[in-house]
Amino acid sequence: MTNVNAPLITLARKLAPLADRVVIKATDEAEQRRGGLFIPDTAKEKPQQGEIIAAGPGKFDEKGGQRIPMDVKVGDKVLYGKYSGTEVTIDGEPYLILRESDVLAIVG
Amino acid sequence: MTNVNAPLITLARKLAPLADRVVIKATDEAEQRRGGLFIPDTAKEKPQQGEIIAAGPGKFDEKGGQRIPMDVKVGDKVLYGKYSGTEVTIDGEPYLILRESDVLAIVG
Amino acid sequence: MTNVNAPLITLARKLAPLADRVVIKATDEAEQRRGGLFIPDTAKEKPQQGEIIAAGPGKFDEKGGQRIPMDVKVGDKVLYGKYSGTEVTIDGEPYLILRESDVLAIVG
Amino acid sequence: MTNVNAPLITLARKLAPLADRVVIKATDEAEQRRGGLFIPDTAKEKPQQGEIIAAGPGKFDEKGGQRIPMDVKVGDKVLYGKYSGTEVTIDGEPYLILRESDVLAIVG
Amino acid sequence: MTNVNAPLITLARKLAPLADRVVIKATDEAEQRRGGLFIPDTAKEKPQQGEIIAAGPGKFDEKGGQRIPMDVKVGDKVLYGKYSGTEVTIDGEPYLILRESDVLAIVG
Amino acid sequence: MTNVNAPLITLARKLAPLADRVVIKATDEAEQRRGGLFIPDTAKEKPQQGEIIAAGPGKFDEKGGQRIPMDVKVGDKVLYGKYSGTEVTIDGEPYLILRESDVLAIVG
Amino acid sequence: MTNVNAPLITLARKLAPLADRVVIKATDEAEQRRGGLFIPDTAKEKPQQGEIIAAGPGKFDEKGGQRIPMDVKVGDKVLYGKYSGTEVTIDGEPYLILRESDVLAIVG
Repeated sequence: MTNVNAPLITLARKLAPLADRVVIKATDEAEQRRGGLFIPDTAKEKPQQGEIIAAGPGKFDEKGGQRIPMDVKVGDKVLYGKYSGTEVTIDGEPYLILRESDVLAIVG
Repeated sequence: MTNVNAPLITLARKLAPLADRVVIKATDEAEQRRGGLFIPDTAKEKPQQGEIIAAGPGKFDEKGGQRIPMDVKVGDKVLYGKYSGTEVTIDGEPYLILRESDVLAIVG
Repeated sequence: MTNVNAPLITLARKLAPLADRVVIKATDEAEQRRGGLFIPDTAKEKPQQGEIIAAGPGKFDEKGGQRIPMDVKVGDKVLYGKYSGTEVTIDGEPYLILRESDVLAIVG
Repeated sequence: MTNVNAPLITLARKLAPLADRVVIKATDEAEQRRGGLFIPDTAKEKPQQGEIIAAGPGKFDEKGGQRIPMDVKVGDKVLYGKYSGTEVTIDGEPYLILRESDVLAIVG
Repeated sequence: MTNVNAPLITLARKLAPLADRVVIKATDEAEQRRGGLFIPDTAKEKPQQGEIIAAGPGKFDEKGGQRIPMDVKVGDKVLYGKYSGTEVTIDGEPYLILRESDVLAIVG
Repeated sequence: MTNVNAPLITLARKLAPLADRVVIKATDEAEQRRGGLFIPDTAKEKPQQGEIIAAGPGKFDEKGGQRIPMDVKVGDKVLYGKYSGTEVTIDGEPYLILRESDVLAIVG
Repeated sequence: MTNVNAPLITLARKLAPLADRVVIKATDEAEQRRGGLFIPDTAKEKPQQGEIIAAGPGKFDEKGGQRIPMDVKVGDKVLYGKYSGTEVTIDGEPYLILRESDVLAIVG
C-alpha cells in the first residue's frame, strides 16, 4: 500500500455499500494502456477499468437466511459496464456505486 | 442525541413503514458538502443523502415463514436514489418513504 | 368504539377481501391535517391517509401450503398510494379495495 | 336453493373451469343496489358483482405436487374486475370465465 | 368411439405434443350451438370449442425431478382462447397445438 | 440407418449443443406432404418439420444440482417454430440451433 | 499447445471473468471455412465461431450455497451469438466477454 492509495482507504471507511453493491474508482486511460488491456474506441459497448474501493456484504437469498457470497473484494482491479451505476464525488474525487453483476471480470 | 433530532424521534413513533420500507429525512446540500461527500451536478443519475428516521421490519420471504433482515437502521446516514419513493410532510417537514433496495450505501 | 365507527363494522361483515387485499376508508383532508401528517400538493406521487376497514387472510405462498401473514389489521390508520386499487360505494360511502403491498406505512 | 338457481346448477355440471379459474354470472344493477353495495359511475376502475357458478380445483404449485387452495366456492357472491376474463353464452345466458386472482372480495 | 373419430385416433399416434402442449380439433359452430353453449359475436375475447386429440406428458417442474400433472386428457371437449397456439394440417384437416394454460374449461 | 443419414451422424459429432439446445435439419416440403402432415400457407404462425441431429444434455435446474431431462433425442422427427433459433451451414448444408422449448411436438 | 496459443494463455491469467462469463477469441473466417462449418451470409441471426480463452467459476444458485457448473472450458471451440457481449482489446488483440448462455454449441 502506497501513499497514493491512502485516500481510497479513507473512503472505504466512509461509504459502506449495501447488499451486492461495490464502490469503484475508475482507472485513467493512460494507466489502462500501460497494463496492456484497453477498450477500443470502436467497441459497441465500452467497458471501463477501475479498482474496487468498497464492497457490500452480498445480498440475501430469497429466504433471507443467508447472503450470496461476493466474488470481488477491495483492491481488485476490474472491468465493468461504463454506463452502469450511480456517480458520487467524495473529497473532490469521482466514484461509481454499482452492483456486482455489472462487473465483468477481474484484471489480474 | 441532540435537540435537533427530537422531532425525528417523534416521527419515528408516528410512522411505521411496512415490510422493507424506510422513512428518510433528506440532508440539505450545505451539510452534505461539510461531510466531504456530495453528488456532482453533472452526474447522470443523482443520488441524495439523508438519515433513516424509521425502518420497517423487513419483507417476508416467498414462503411467508420469515422476514428478510434489514441492512439499515434508524439513525443511519445513507445515499439513496433521489427520484425514488413517496413524499410526505409531517409537522411541516418533508420526508420520503422508500424501499431498502433504493438505498445505495451507508455513509459512515 | 364510538357510534361513528358503527357503519364501518357493518361493512367489514359485508365485504371480505380475498388473499392480501384490504378495504380502506379514506381520511378526509381536514382530519389528516389535525394529525400533523399530510401530503404536500407539490408531491410527485401523492399518498393518501385512511383506515383499514377489512383485511384479507393473506395470500398463499408459492407452494400453497401456508399464507403469508398480513402486517395490517382492521382499525389501522395507514398511508397508501392514492391511485392504487378499486373504488366501491357501500351504503352511499366510498371505499377502496387494494393489496397490502400498496400500503406504505401505519400511522401510529 | 330456489327455482331461480336451477339453470346455474345445470351449468356448473356443463362447464368445469381448469386450474384457478371460476365461472361467474353477473348480478344485474338493480339487484346490486338493493344489497346496498354498488359501484359509482365515476369510479376509475369499475368492479362488478356476480355469483360463482363453477370453480376450478386450484392451480398446481411450482413443483406440481399439490394444488394451491381456492378461496372462493360455488354460490359465493363476489366483486371482480369488470373487464377481466372471457365471455361465454350458455343456453342464452351470458357468463364470464376468469382467474380467482381477478376476484377482489366476497360480499357476505 | 364412432367411425367419425377414427382419423383423430390416427392423428394422436402421429403427433406427440411436448411438455404441457395439447393438439385440438376445433368444433364447428353448428355443433357448438346444438350443445347449448356458444360464444356471442359481441364477446370481447372470443373463446373456441374443440376436442383434445393428443396431450403432452406435462412440463417438468423447476427442479426437473417431476412433471406437473395435466388436467386435460384425450377426448375432453374444451373451451380455449381462439387466437392461441399454432395451426397444422394433417391429412387435409386443420388442428391447433397449444399449451394447457390456454385451455379455459372442460365442457362436460 | 441409410447412407442418406451419414453426413448427419458426422455432424452430430461435430456440433454439441449446450444446455437445452438442439440442432435440427429441416425436412423439405415435398417430403413433409408425403407424411400427410403439413402446414397450411394460410397459417398465422407457421411451424416447420425437421429431424433432431444433435441434442444438448438439458439445462441445469435453479440449484445447479441436476439437469432437467430432455424430451427429444437424436433421430426424432419434430414440429418447431419456423422463425425460432439460429441458422448455421455445415459442409454446405443448412441447420438450425434452437431450444427444446421451441419444439412443439414429435411426429411419430 | 503451440507458440500461436501462447499469448492466449497469458491473457487467461490476466482476465478472470466473473460468475458465468467467458472470454472468447473470435476465429477468422478463413479458418472457420477450413473446419467445414460456417455461417451463411443470408442467415437471419448470424452466430460466430471462437475459442474459450478464460471461463468464470459459474454463477451462484438462488440460495448462494453452490455454483451452477459451467458447460464450457478453456480451449473449447464454440459457436456464439455474434452481437452478444462486450469487446475488449488486450495487447492489441480483440476479445469478447459474454455469458455462457450466449454460447450455442461446442464445435468438436
